[in-house]
Amino acid sequence: MTFFDALDLIGTLAFAISGALTALHKRMDPFGVLIIAFVTAVGGGTLRDVLIGRTPVGWMQDLNYLYIITLGFVLVVVFRGKLLRFKLSMLLSDTVGLGVFTLIGIQKGLDFGVHPYICVALGTMTACFGGVIRDVLCVEIPVIFRKEIYATICILGGAVFFVLKEWQLPDTLVYLITSLVIIVVRLLVVKFNWSLPTLDLKPNQ
Amino acid sequence: MTFFDALDLIGTLAFAISGALTALHKRMDPFGVLIIAFVTAVGGGTLRDVLIGRTPVGWMQDLNYLYIITLGFVLVVVFRGKLLRFKLSMLLSDTVGLGVFTLIGIQKGLDFGVHPYICVALGTMTACFGGVIRDVLCVEIPVIFRKEIYATICILGGAVFFVLKEWQLPDTLVYLITSLVIIVVRLLVVKFNWSLPTLDLKPNQ
Amino acid sequence: MTFFDALDLIGTLAFAISGALTALHKRMDPFGVLIIAFVTAVGGGTLRDVLIGRTPVGWMQDLNYLYIITLGFVLVVVFRGKLLRFKLSMLLSDTVGLGVFTLIGIQKGLDFGVHPYICVALGTMTACFGGVIRDVLCVEIPVIFRKEIYATICILGGAVFFVLKEWQLPDTLVYLITSLVIIVVRLLVVKFNWSLPTLDLKPNQ
Repeated sequence: MTFFDALDLIGTLAFAISGALTALHKRMDPFGVLIIAFVTAVGGGTLRDVLIGRTPVGWMQDLNYLYIITLGFVLVVVFRGKLLRFKLSMLLSDTVGLGVFTLIGIQKGLDFGVHPYICVALGTMTACFGGVIRDVLCVEIPVIFRKEIYATICILGGAVFFVLKEWQLPDTLVYLITSLVIIVVRLLVVKFNWSLPTLDLKPNQ
Repeated sequence: MTFFDALDLIGTLAFAISGALTALHKRMDPFGVLIIAFVTAVGGGTLRDVLIGRTPVGWMQDLNYLYIITLGFVLVVVFRGKLLRFKLSMLLSDTVGLGVFTLIGIQKGLDFGVHPYICVALGTMTACFGGVIRDVLCVEIPVIFRKEIYATICILGGAVFFVLKEWQLPDTLVYLITSLVIIVVRLLVVKFNWSLPTLDLKPNQ
Repeated sequence: MTFFDALDLIGTLAFAISGALTALHKRMDPFGVLIIAFVTAVGGGTLRDVLIGRTPVGWMQDLNYLYIITLGFVLVVVFRGKLLRFKLSMLLSDTVGLGVFTLIGIQKGLDFGVHPYICVALGTMTACFGGVIRDVLCVEIPVIFRKEIYATICILGGAVFFVLKEWQLPDTLVYLITSLVIIVVRLLVVKFNWSLPTLDLKPNQ
């Protein structure tokens, strides 16, 4: 297993935990909690695979996703009374997931030969749409459409990726710098509580 | 048409009727009722086909689905004032659908050569996700995530399926026993009103 | 670019604007507004492509969709205080979109060799399901299931299409008449405020 694969599993675990916590707050039963953990963790990558035609989709071909998500589910159920203490480690692994998933999505787009803009869209989708599906199943307007600067960081990371590619840096360096940019910006955003302004509907009147 | 195909159509009809009834309760117009009947009946199988890459998806290649769903829609519209009387036959055909759809999903997974765990997931998806899509379109938290032991029975049925396979029983017997287990457990669950406990969020405090 | 392609882009622009306006009313941030504009414009065609197995889906292979949707997004953000004045031009371009998208969906179905009924379903899906996904992401029961005669017009247009084909009219004429039927009926529906009746749940009691 490469270092990249390890980060992928950490991101998957973090997303599974975030999904399971959301489902617990909605008072779902254990099956619901498991499914929401699952779709949060693999939903973005699954949507990406379906749209580019890479089937059977990723998690059907590698059981590690199933195992790691089940682990996340068990952790949440066992430690559900104490998880607030782990808020910082949650944030950190979620942020690592954001960086890694964006990179994976961009790379898959390159493999399928689509335009860089579409690659950036696929990276953003991979990192963010698990959360969108989670919110839809929980009947909430997706949080990334409302207040959190989250997807915008993926788009920024995607831009950095292709600028570095343009400069012909070696792939490893491109991956490293892109991930670091995403991770650092994400932590700054959370630290200083930045958000995009909502657009007032009638500003001229 | 085999006995298996006949059961498939009965399950489709039952799911179409359950979808149409839900849409009526939401006061949708006839087109909405028809569409919700349609996605409830074929949504799970369609999602499965898309994820494993079996396209065009099933209902595009066999018009019987379209006809049987239209029949379900017409039945609901015509008899909508009297459907409560048929509650028991509804439950029975829905339960048959649950058993048959689970088997079909598992079998499709085997055809595509994925791992037994993934086959069980595909069986559960085939049987349950039409109802999930129905609830999402009706802006409800999916009922199977909240209170009904429904998906868990499919997972149990899937486990039985692969244990029997392991014992090298003939296919027909495997199908028969698996369906019967799913159907009997489902009826027991309804009869005794069993449900999974919701997980209290802070049980240790 | 053919005349047909030009109409496609006009329809895409109109649908993007309608999506962006809906997202503004939900007080989403700019990223949310852009995504809702995007899924409203390409969601129906994307679902169709996924279900028939035409991947990578359309908008990944032609950047014009991305550009035109971004244009729609910018127009809405810049002129958001004044858009009510453009209500009529919005309705007209939305109606053109409805006609063109229905035709495109039917044609794609013919290209994949599915039955005429399925082609009509694909045309309706192409024209209407972007709006359904928009409503689901905004946590509303899809408007076309509730009150607007919209999808029914697509089905009517699809029927006209295949009747004309049966008469062996030349393709151009089939396209022209079908679009005109859809557009004229849609304008009449809006003008006279027609809607399908909702089905009263217990009419016989």
